[in-house]
Amino acid sequence: MRQQKIAIVGAGLVGSLWAVYLAKRGHLVQIFDRRPDIRKMKVVQGKSINLALSDRGWKGLAGAGVSEEIKKMAIPMSGRLMHSVKGELSYQPYGKMGQAIFSVSRGLLNQKLIEIAASNEKVELFFSHRCEDINLDSNEIRFVREEDRVNVHFTFDRIFGTDGAFSAVRSRLIKIDRFNYSQEYLSHGYKELEIPANSDGSHRMRNDCLHIWPRGEFMMIALPNLDGSFTCTLFIAFEGEVSFEHLQDEAKVKKFFHENFPDAYELMPELTGDFFANPNASLVMTKCYPWHYKDQIALLGDAAHAIVPFYGQGMNCGFEDCTIFDDLLNQNDEDWSAAFSDFSHLRKPSGDAILELALRNYIEMRDKTSDQHFLLQKKIEGYFSSKHPDRWTPLYSQVTFSDIPYEQALKEGDRQEKIMAKIMAIPGIEHSWNSDEIEQLILSELNKNV
Amino acid sequence: MRQQKIAIVGAGLVGSLWAVYLAKRGHLVQIFDRRPDIRKMKVVQGKSINLALSDRGWKGLAGAGVSEEIKKMAIPMSGRLMHSVKGELSYQPYGKMGQAIFSVSRGLLNQKLIEIAASNEKVELFFSHRCEDINLDSNEIRFVREEDRVNVHFTFDRIFGTDGAFSAVRSRLIKIDRFNYSQEYLSHGYKELEIPANSDGSHRMRNDCLHIWPRGEFMMIALPNLDGSFTCTLFIAFEGEVSFEHLQDEAKVKKFFHENFPDAYELMPELTGDFFANPNASLVMTKCYPWHYKDQIALLGDAAHAIVPFYGQGMNCGFEDCTIFDDLLNQNDEDWSAAFSDFSHLRKPSGDAILELALRNYIEMRDKTSDQHFLLQKKIEGYFSSKHPDRWTPLYSQVTFSDIPYEQALKEGDRQEKIMAKIMAIPGIEHSWNSDEIEQLILSELNKNV
Repeated sequence: MRQQKIAIVGAGLVGSLWAVYLAKRGHLVQIFDRRPDIRKMKVVQGKSINLALSDRGWKGLAGAGVSEEIKKMAIPMSGRLMHSVKGELSYQPYGKMGQAIFSVSRGLLNQKLIEIAASNEKVELFFSHRCEDINLDSNEIRFVREEDRVNVHFTFDRIFGTDGAFSAVRSRLIKIDRFNYSQEYLSHGYKELEIPANSDGSHRMRNDCLHIWPRGEFMMIALPNLDGSFTCTLFIAFEGEVSFEHLQDEAKVKKFFHENFPDAYELMPELTGDFFANPNASLVMTKCYPWHYKDQIALLGDAAHAIVPFYGQGMNCGFEDCTIFDDLLNQNDEDWSAAFSDFSHLRKPSGDAILELALRNYIEMRDKTSDQHFLLQKKIEGYFSSKHPDRWTPLYSQVTFSDIPYEQALKEGDRQEKIMAKIMAIPGIEHSWNSDEIEQLILSELNKNV
Repeated sequence: MRQQKIAIVGAGLVGSLWAVYLAKRGHLVQIFDRRPDIRKMKVVQGKSINLALSDRGWKGLAGAGVSEEIKKMAIPMSGRLMHSVKGELSYQPYGKMGQAIFSVSRGLLNQKLIEIAASNEKVELFFSHRCEDINLDSNEIRFVREEDRVNVHFTFDRIFGTDGAFSAVRSRLIKIDRFNYSQEYLSHGYKELEIPANSDGSHRMRNDCLHIWPRGEFMMIALPNLDGSFTCTLFIAFEGEVSFEHLQDEAKVKKFFHENFPDAYELMPELTGDFFANPNASLVMTKCYPWHYKDQIALLGDAAHAIVPFYGQGMNCGFEDCTIFDDLLNQNDEDWSAAFSDFSHLRKPSGDAILELALRNYIEMRDKTSDQHFLLQKKIEGYFSSKHPDRWTPLYSQVTFSDIPYEQALKEGDRQEKIMAKIMAIPGIEHSWNSDEIEQLILSELNKNV
């Protein structure tokens, strides 16, 4: 197998991890990023939403042999803790005992992955290099070097675009005949805020769960950081009755938080300062197809499939792209043409499915997690699943704690939803939910639906 | 009202017409196009599909005072003439007596519109100027002048992007936060072919109709030209059982045409030469939103809403954009900010509706126009409509022979379709279709559905 000269455009999470995979395979890898070297920055102002690592992400990291190092910077969260307007708490485990998702800082994780990639002698890094154009005939990339605005040119055997939702590599592919593409923004955006640590560095709320303040048309969440703080994210519409456009002065912001998130409000001394200092960020979903061009260029991660963050799967899906591409290179004996084409073809349905799942989960998180009917349904599913783990894996667990293809999880989840709609319609279900009768009913529905 | 310095990027059909409108309003207009001046070209190899002008298009032309000149180059087509595999012909009028759509050559029409625009002293034309970037702060456009590859810069009060499905102006807008965009290619493409004129310059088939060879998964159409020839267009899948990929040598092409279009085949002496000389062209639909940026930039025509050609509405919709934008400038007393925003907001549903209608019409043209059930339904609709013209305007006529908003036509068409589904399900409808009973039934359904 011939050693390849490979470009990775985008030194984000997926790009830096993918570099480790390719270097392990013996190839020469050059990573380019339009931003300066984030290892040299003190405060990493990521485009986070803090991230939640789950099984697919860990598997992707393990494949490059780096999961142990990352585990040190991750905080396990075993469930959701919902905060009502009155400050009442209700806890819902994410999975079975011992299962958790892990809060990590995007910035710290990215720094670490770049360090690991850079420590490999086959990997070379170029920061402040903005990809401007790709010559499809020669596979030559033109970069603008930000420091002196000079054009520099490099030619590669293979090019990977891991440059995120606004990918420059994809911008070039968009011009190719019969390349499908869409970008769609949500009417809701987000803003990051903070709950600082106690003076002794401890957390001011439980740090073993993901906090949610579900409020129907908007919500806030909080994920714990290693330093005792929480990163909070408010999700709310840009325009309309309850929206960013109506939160324009300190008094209105204070009133809004005091009324809607009273318990959190007490823990946010810098609320209004943060609120007006931090941007109103938008949420975009992108789809494209194919994800490759001949045996020359492929897109991985957000560049191929940017999704909304509500299933905590964006990064996990990107890391799984690495797992899958690596498997395809093995299966095809490094026939790059076959691997590129298989990747587009086989992985596209997964990208579409997790996009759909993530969008649906926004409704679930902001709205249904405070709904007694929904919570009862989840309780029944959990109970049945614990008695028949071979017959029922809750959708959330399929997505988060397994690596079955997302499209299979989506299909199975829809099937479960249909069954549960029948179960939830049974009069008195709130009393009979853990009866033998209900258990038998679910089993017979499952047998019907095979 | 202050005289504006206005850029129109794209000297295609919509751009050159829009220049006439703006110059009539007293503004200074500079039109830019990346292509050379097509007035200087002998053979205009347009990206046609010959075009069919209908009411909305004529209204748009009339608003600029140019419809009389264009009428001279247009051939009226009063209906569809379907050709069966056995060469049997069946005729279906497009509308009422005297109504027609008009075949025009894209190239000749474009040349004429540019001539008309150029004859206005307020209009200046720049060819071989490729729009490379737009500075949104200053409204300055950077063009590359193709002759010497030099960058030239111009600043404008307003910029209109009329540069088609692959709009460079829209490419700049795509980078703006919360700008939605999609491009989607059909699995089918097209290829232009020719039926030449008789030696005396006469047409070899009826020249007062649009010819269709509907064949289910593929079809051919032919539109008459002024010189006695017909421009034929084959629509077929790129890949699959019956597709471009299987028409790879002369023998296969001849066999395919001989079997599927035997009557046309006899009239196409240059078939295989044309077939391998002309490209397999793709069909793209694009959507975006908003169609403007502040009071600075707006998209018109295909740049805002590229659709498939199967309703013959692409150009007509673009010309109607001119009518509507001009009306909005009047209504808003040339408050540009209001006109730009109204245009996006009010016209977007029309763009979405005609995209949907055009896509549906592909199925209808290639498949249903050879279906007896469908033809009977159209006959019933036509009969009822002729007796109750105030109660029923067939969808095709709403789109083609009126200027009611496309979204209203789509909605009304869906309502009619539901009623006709009931009517067509009546046993013996093929005999009772023109009975009093059926007439009363349709009337009572219409009264229900108001």
